[in-house]
Amino acid sequence: MDPTAAVTARLARFIVESRWEDLPEAVRHESKRTLLNIFGAAFAGCRDVAIDHALAVLQPFSGPAEATIIGRSERADVLTAAFVNGASANVLDFCDTHHPTIIHPTAPVAPALLAFAERKRCSGRQLLHALILGLEAECRVGNAVSPWHYAHGWHITSTCGVIGAAVAVGKLLELDAERMACAIGLGANQACGLVESLGSMAKSVSVGNAPRNGIVAALLAERGFTAAPATLEGERGFTRVMGQSADPSAIVRGLGTAWETTRNAYKPYPCGIVLHPVIDALLELRARHELQAENVERVTVRGHPLLRERTDRTRPRSGREAQVSLQHTAAVCLIYGRAGVAEYSDARAIEPAVQSFGDRVEVNDDASIPVEAIAVSLRTVDGRTFALEVPHALGSLGRPMTDAQLEGKARTHAALNAPGVPVDRLIEAVWALDRSDDAANVARLSALNPRN
Amino acid sequence: MDPTAAVTARLARFIVESRWEDLPEAVRHESKRTLLNIFGAAFAGCRDVAIDHALAVLQPFSGPAEATIIGRSERADVLTAAFVNGASANVLDFCDTHHPTIIHPTAPVAPALLAFAERKRCSGRQLLHALILGLEAECRVGNAVSPWHYAHGWHITSTCGVIGAAVAVGKLLELDAERMACAIGLGANQACGLVESLGSMAKSVSVGNAPRNGIVAALLAERGFTAAPATLEGERGFTRVMGQSADPSAIVRGLGTAWETTRNAYKPYPCGIVLHPVIDALLELRARHELQAENVERVTVRGHPLLRERTDRTRPRSGREAQVSLQHTAAVCLIYGRAGVAEYSDARAIEPAVQSFGDRVEVNDDASIPVEAIAVSLRTVDGRTFALEVPHALGSLGRPMTDAQLEGKARTHAALNAPGVPVDRLIEAVWALDRSDDAANVARLSALNPRN
Repeated sequence: MDPTAAVTARLARFIVESRWEDLPEAVRHESKRTLLNIFGAAFAGCRDVAIDHALAVLQPFSGPAEATIIGRSERADVLTAAFVNGASANVLDFCDTHHPTIIHPTAPVAPALLAFAERKRCSGRQLLHALILGLEAECRVGNAVSPWHYAHGWHITSTCGVIGAAVAVGKLLELDAERMACAIGLGANQACGLVESLGSMAKSVSVGNAPRNGIVAALLAERGFTAAPATLEGERGFTRVMGQSADPSAIVRGLGTAWETTRNAYKPYPCGIVLHPVIDALLELRARHELQAENVERVTVRGHPLLRERTDRTRPRSGREAQVSLQHTAAVCLIYGRAGVAEYSDARAIEPAVQSFGDRVEVNDDASIPVEAIAVSLRTVDGRTFALEVPHALGSLGRPMTDAQLEGKARTHAALNAPGVPVDRLIEAVWALDRSDDAANVARLSALNPRN
Repeated sequence: MDPTAAVTARLARFIVESRWEDLPEAVRHESKRTLLNIFGAAFAGCRDVAIDHALAVLQPFSGPAEATIIGRSERADVLTAAFVNGASANVLDFCDTHHPTIIHPTAPVAPALLAFAERKRCSGRQLLHALILGLEAECRVGNAVSPWHYAHGWHITSTCGVIGAAVAVGKLLELDAERMACAIGLGANQACGLVESLGSMAKSVSVGNAPRNGIVAALLAERGFTAAPATLEGERGFTRVMGQSADPSAIVRGLGTAWETTRNAYKPYPCGIVLHPVIDALLELRARHELQAENVERVTVRGHPLLRERTDRTRPRSGREAQVSLQHTAAVCLIYGRAGVAEYSDARAIEPAVQSFGDRVEVNDDASIPVEAIAVSLRTVDGRTFALEVPHALGSLGRPMTDAQLEGKARTHAALNAPGVPVDRLIEAVWALDRSDDAANVARLSALNPRN
């Protein structure tokens, strides 16, 4: 058989036939880890001005307030909640990263499921299973069109995310294979989002649309709405139109044996991922030698050329620029001993002491150093020098965040932005989700001051 | 100045500064004609199964039922109504066609304005003005990326439509130039829709999203949501990502002097536009010579090769296939003396007499004949022959539908699908819309059994 034939149909069949029992234990556990991580990321983002604006604009059109807005007290209809939570989980780029594609896969998928579960009761296992399958479809479609797709200008989290969300909700709806193929097609037909929009709030519109429109796609498919049978692989379909020389067969190759969630990583710091090993090194040096920033004369960073290309940026003017500034990052690590949400605020970005410290930072290319590694050396005004190499940044695939660290991420950001969230109960409920008969419980526990 | 520079900003400024008084009288009148035509098209489409499905899926999430669903008794929130009416106006491909791009421009724009006017009061003149500007932006963006965009696989009505809708609603909101540029960017960031989806219901999802998401884009921009300043012309912006070798400067060239609505045409028949001159010729021959289909032995059609390429299709199996079948079209013209919505139903498509008549139809290429023309000859069983040439099909730019014919289109399809619509009052209200201080009146009059 032509390996590119019937890709949409084969993907649909796999999704429909998949059983929870078929998932490796590590993949099942990963479903909880990525869910916990997305709560942490959404707590961090839920007070961003883009989220305030989106809620203010959409609430007047909201139907029954059936669904939770993560970290907030407002509620909204399922579609609106999915939009807002998707945007919120991703707005700070603090969610997860599928390394082969740089998709942030969970923000478009989990919010669709969480909101939908508040309308249509399902078990925790069903939700976790649907989450894994949605992520799998999303990342596999992304694999097929990468790296051209993003390089050409497509915001891959948005474009592939809506397909993942459609698949996930379709699984909750227990669609048959024919209907599932339509859900995939209806998702692909809504794929949008331009890289040009990154750095502006516009990014949050296509990211928010992904879970919202994924739900709509699945519900329409359930109802009998048709889609082209080969929307992924057809002559005028997704992979051909949005991927140059894409190989659609990559979408289904090794289905059920290779799991994309094993290549997904979580961020400990709300900034560009190439900066993460720098943060690890500087926080470690600062603690180990009890350094004071005013005693540091020079910081020299040696890393993969991508580090310099993406982050050699002195005196950023906003939090968003600071997130991709090596100078800013080194400054807050040494001055504050932290690199959290507060350290990447607009106010912190323009603080004179932070800005001027950046002038003491030097960056040198070394293509032999992997992106997730770094070599840092540091000289003090009194002539001491210290050096440290970090082979794997925390949160890289080589050194994943531990379960405890993911709990900490949720706790820290709930405390920061949503102190009324019963975060301990939420964490406990996430770990026990595969034994719950009401998946919506975790959604409700993520609200500010939940009623139950 | 580089002509491709600041295209988004220049388009935004033009929209913001445009005054109703600046529009040529013919363009102002066209705004009413295209509005009347879209009501006719939506009456024709409003009972399609895709519209039933969309309403059934979206209504459970609908907020305040502020807005009319054209031709139906249901009401919905503004965003849902915009989606459903956009889909309904376009579902049969019976709306309008911008000849340079083959965009169906009004279905994404007018439904956004009509629904929004039911929430935020505006004058008829404001609505008509916003409609013209939305269509102008939409078609100009389309010009810049044509013909590559559609040929590559983008459903141009959906992709450019959301930008037109954002501009139109932004004009109603009286956005300033900076906010208008953001509305354009937020629209462009939501551009989607694959040609692969045509022929399935999936088409209606991207078409319906266009007016819905255009409203969201404009409201977010009003609220302060930002977008990349060069979303249309930037390195990773709309024209570069979705148009190969596109010339973004085409978007703003001749703004205010050349009006795209003068290149927009309305369809008298709910089928492929290349079939229209055939219908004109056959209906004329049938009437003139009082022909009976059973006495017709042979129909020979000589036309532009596109006619054969697009419509040489015997024994179609559905109404949708019949819409692009020359054989079916000739059959219903000669058997029923009509080529209306009923003649393109699923039932009519598989009628034995209609299917077998198709075998008597022959098509020959003649590249010297324009697409909007045809030469038809016909032989009867008793040996008579008749011939007719149609130089311009009704509804072509060379022979536009008259105002009275557009009224007839609205009346016919209201009678067919929505007999409770007060269509005479609606028609009168459309022609008088530039003197009304409440544009929403026309929206309300398009409902089945309106309350006022």
